[in-house]
Amino acid sequence: MAGLVPAISLRGPKRDAWHKAGRDKGKAMSKRHWEDFEAGSVAVYGPRLVTREEIVAFAAEFDPQPMHLDEAAAGATLLGGLAASGWHSCCLLMRMIADGFVNETSSMGAPGVDEVRWLKPLRPGTRVRVRATVVGTRASNSRPDVGFVNFLFELLDEQDNVLITLTSPLMLRRRAAGAAA
Amino acid sequence: MAGLVPAISLRGPKRDAWHKAGRDKGKAMSKRHWEDFEAGSVAVYGPRLVTREEIVAFAAEFDPQPMHLDEAAAGATLLGGLAASGWHSCCLLMRMIADGFVNETSSMGAPGVDEVRWLKPLRPGTRVRVRATVVGTRASNSRPDVGFVNFLFELLDEQDNVLITLTSPLMLRRRAAGAAA
Repeated sequence: MAGLVPAISLRGPKRDAWHKAGRDKGKAMSKRHWEDFEAGSVAVYGPRLVTREEIVAFAAEFDPQPMHLDEAAAGATLLGGLAASGWHSCCLLMRMIADGFVNETSSMGAPGVDEVRWLKPLRPGTRVRVRATVVGTRASNSRPDVGFVNFLFELLDEQDNVLITLTSPLMLRRRAAGAAA
Repeated sequence: MAGLVPAISLRGPKRDAWHKAGRDKGKAMSKRHWEDFEAGSVAVYGPRLVTREEIVAFAAEFDPQPMHLDEAAAGATLLGGLAASGWHSCCLLMRMIADGFVNETSSMGAPGVDEVRWLKPLRPGTRVRVRATVVGTRASNSRPDVGFVNFLFELLDEQDNVLITLTSPLMLRRRAAGAAA
């Protein structure tokens, strides 16, 4: 369903180096590692158009509640009309960051999610982007070759309204093993 | 893809009344409302068999990382073999609780998720269930017709290993409007 969605803006200090690294797939060390993320850096990924058809298809498969399935039923709910499942919003965000940067890093995955807030409904026809802010970084307590990068991810609409926020740590290999924290 | 997955066990005090209410779709007031949830009650929903095909299909659409797409690549990752995206685990859990009880309540949705922990990999061929524990309930501060039920949801495998935990408040209409808290 989803095509590759290129980053449309990235205000970190190492933009060009990252993209050069991403193209050079043969050298694992050229991927972005834990040391390459700095607190305060912000990047935006996407855009992606969210259709009525995919909202309803996702809901039918994973979250079959009236407000995600049917306009008439949705009109009588708190959302006041058809809107994507909150889980769908999270999954779209995941796809945009996977294409946007995660698959060009030494990511080892994430242990979980610290918090999700579904702030505004995601309506059919919205063109969404993800704003990713590095909140902080820390070395692993137990593994000198691993570090964590804490992210705030925000799903934005065309007017930069924040539809959802998601805070999550990403676990990455370190370029050079350091002392455990 | 998913069929309806009936609850296989429910240890709350109002099991029979809930199910009778669920069948009687004509009377909205017969649905479970906020007052019908009690702290400490536990129910189990499912089971559902998770296949390799659906793990790979979900990952290709929403979380295209090597550990969710390909056995050989996954073997070299922290997960040590193919495993479902953590987001897929959340979505399967959502489907099981929607079918299991949410769609038979006065649910108005959820404002978000307080925490998700991906504790153990969800492997192809696992038959999962959801254990739902009511952690607490509270009336809305602002709306006398609304209350919150805080849940701990656990995704279990056949041996009752906890694969993920997810804590989330569900917003429900009250059967009788009370004083705002």
